[in-house]
Amino acid sequence: MNRTTDTSVTVIGLGLMGRALAGAFLKAGHPTTVWNRTSAKAGQLVAEGARLAPTVGDALKASSLTIICVTDYQAVRELLGASDSELGGRTLINLTSGDSAQAREAAQWAEQRGARYLDGAIMAIPSAIGTAEAVILHSGPQPDFEAHRSTIDALGTVTYLGADHGLASLYDVAGLAMMWSVLNAWLQGTAMLRTAGVDAATFAPFARQIAAGVAEWLPGYAEQIDRGSFPAEVSALETDARAMNHLVEESEAVGVNAELPKLIKAMADRAIAAGHGGEQYPVLIEEFSRPHND
Amino acid sequence: MNRTTDTSVTVIGLGLMGRALAGAFLKAGHPTTVWNRTSAKAGQLVAEGARLAPTVGDALKASSLTIICVTDYQAVRELLGASDSELGGRTLINLTSGDSAQAREAAQWAEQRGARYLDGAIMAIPSAIGTAEAVILHSGPQPDFEAHRSTIDALGTVTYLGADHGLASLYDVAGLAMMWSVLNAWLQGTAMLRTAGVDAATFAPFARQIAAGVAEWLPGYAEQIDRGSFPAEVSALETDARAMNHLVEESEAVGVNAELPKLIKAMADRAIAAGHGGEQYPVLIEEFSRPHND
Ligand SMILES: NC(=O)c1ccc[n+]([C@@H]2O[C@H](COP(=O)([O-])OP(=O)(O)OC[C@H]3O[C@@H](n4cnc5c(N)ncnc54)[C@H](OP(=O)(O)O)[C@@H]3O)[C@@H](O)[C@H]2O)c1
Ligand SMILES: NC(=O)c1ccc[n+]([C@@H]2O[C@H](COP(=O)([O-])OP(=O)(O)OC[C@H]3O[C@@H](n4cnc5c(N)ncnc54)[C@H](OP(=O)(O)O)[C@@H]3O)[C@@H](O)[C@H]2O)c1
Repeated sequence: MNRTTDTSVTVIGLGLMGRALAGAFLKAGHPTTVWNRTSAKAGQLVAEGARLAPTVGDALKASSLTIICVTDYQAVRELLGASDSELGGRTLINLTSGDSAQAREAAQWAEQRGARYLDGAIMAIPSAIGTAEAVILHSGPQPDFEAHRSTIDALGTVTYLGADHGLASLYDVAGLAMMWSVLNAWLQGTAMLRTAGVDAATFAPFARQIAAGVAEWLPGYAEQIDRGSFPAEVSALETDARAMNHLVEESEAVGVNAELPKLIKAMADRAIAAGHGGEQYPVLIEEFSRPHND
Repeated sequence: MNRTTDTSVTVIGLGLMGRALAGAFLKAGHPTTVWNRTSAKAGQLVAEGARLAPTVGDALKASSLTIICVTDYQAVRELLGASDSELGGRTLINLTSGDSAQAREAAQWAEQRGARYLDGAIMAIPSAIGTAEAVILHSGPQPDFEAHRSTIDALGTVTYLGADHGLASLYDVAGLAMMWSVLNAWLQGTAMLRTAGVDAATFAPFARQIAAGVAEWLPGYAEQIDRGSFPAEVSALETDARAMNHLVEESEAVGVNAELPKLIKAMADRAIAAGHGGEQYPVLIEEFSRPHND
């Protein structure tokens, strides 16, 4: 069997996301086999040309590549456990959300059964699947990713991160942390400006510009972290901390939530207490890298 | 006196920032008068063509426009208090950092003395002054801003925000909150990825792309806030909260700081507890708009 030209694919799990995945494969012309615990959810896909496999084993046998996307890793294990003899020689891409440890365990489990295993994370909502907007992260052995890349390209912007199976989960939550942080900072500013009668639409372009501008600094700041040297080329943490006081005080004075401002300040204060007041912001990596107990 | 063609300018306060401001005016060809408590700091500027006024009163009299930039608002009041009779008919732009209440008070004080008053905030470091990179926010009566715009343009990207004198301070700290939040989210992700051996430079472009991408959502999300209606067009807060659990758990599992992830989750959990689990993320504006006491 020539893996690179066999473009048939199996999708296991037909929840909101699984149905979107199978739909995108069908739309791209891939012979698509599907299976779901509740088989009724396959109805629309079968009408669009999917083949409904009667058992998990049959679903696995139908294609050299199986995508699984169910609630959690426990469901993956329960599902595949009974049919694990069919995994040998096949490639499994697990797009179920989980953490990096679960991904590494699942990889070991699948590889012990002779499967090629890639772990993935979907940074998109079901309706975006099949468009460039849907970012789908993969980690695991690169040859296995490359062998099926032309097939999984049907799902969206498909990205390979590295051989460590835990990377997709780690990048996923790190990306989400960035997403929520941009939104929260914007909400903080919006809440403050609304106390002065400024509406959200007026403030948003300003916030957008700052977020996009600061994003451009990250590669340069990353070099400081990788070198482990944080000269205050732009400004020293001590100077930042004075402005952080203004942020906290202003938040309190106008009567909005001050927890985010206080956390920003607390992290900087700890780094200053540790002797880093004369260094530049990325020196905070030391605080972010260790748990805080209080 | 025709305010729009008189391009001479006075700068009071020659700390790191004041010297940069005066230097930019000189470079742009404006006749520049300076004053500083410690007069020795004027040396280099005088060599470049500035005139050093012997007293604050003389400094004010020398130009129709005075820029003041000192440590804090108390220093502004101390400095100008003794010479306040010279303020009548002149324009004062106060670029000293402070909060919105201080700005409004200072405006009232100056206007009572017959001055035109604009409050400003400098979103830049001294070395950027005079370049487009230096964003300088202004608030107060628009005609007074417009009358001197061609002069203050020498300082960088000069922006007018509105008539409320408190706006420059509010936008300033809101912008800083965005800056620190992007940096902190990036540090959080960097710390997590480093536990898997990924260096900061490898992760940075991914973080940059997410931050820049999410920045583009803000104007659309702002419309939800201004309408006060948060339909879950993209995803519901409840769905986000499940992924927030992954972020918290993964941070703890890999042994990095989990305070930022926990704060993200706490804000969402409160909104869900208040009955907003089926709505979209910007509904969190309600949590950000009120103080939290615990
Ligand atoms: N929806 C999104 O916006 C989104 C975005 C990114 C990532 N994800 C991830 O994608 C995965 C699936 O999400 P979803 O939205 O499709 O969820 P969903 O609509 O709730 O579907 C869950 C799927 O898992 C199956 N399942 C659960 N437990 C099972 C078990 N023990 N045995 C067999 N099958 C089981 C369900 O089968 P039944 O139909 O028989 O119940 C169903 O197919 C999750 O890990 C989620 O975090 C979702
Ligand atoms: N530096 C930056 O990166 C930066 C960025 C954005 C905003 N800012 C803001 O710009 C303002 C000035 O900052 P800076 O960096 O120039 O500070 P700085 O170098 O410490 O200079 C402080 C200035 O204030 C004067 N001053 C302080 N108290 C005084 C008093 N009671 N009477 C008379 N003069 C007094 C000092 O006079 P002496 O020389 O006689 O001490 C000096 O001219 C601050 O509000 C700061 O937050 C600075």
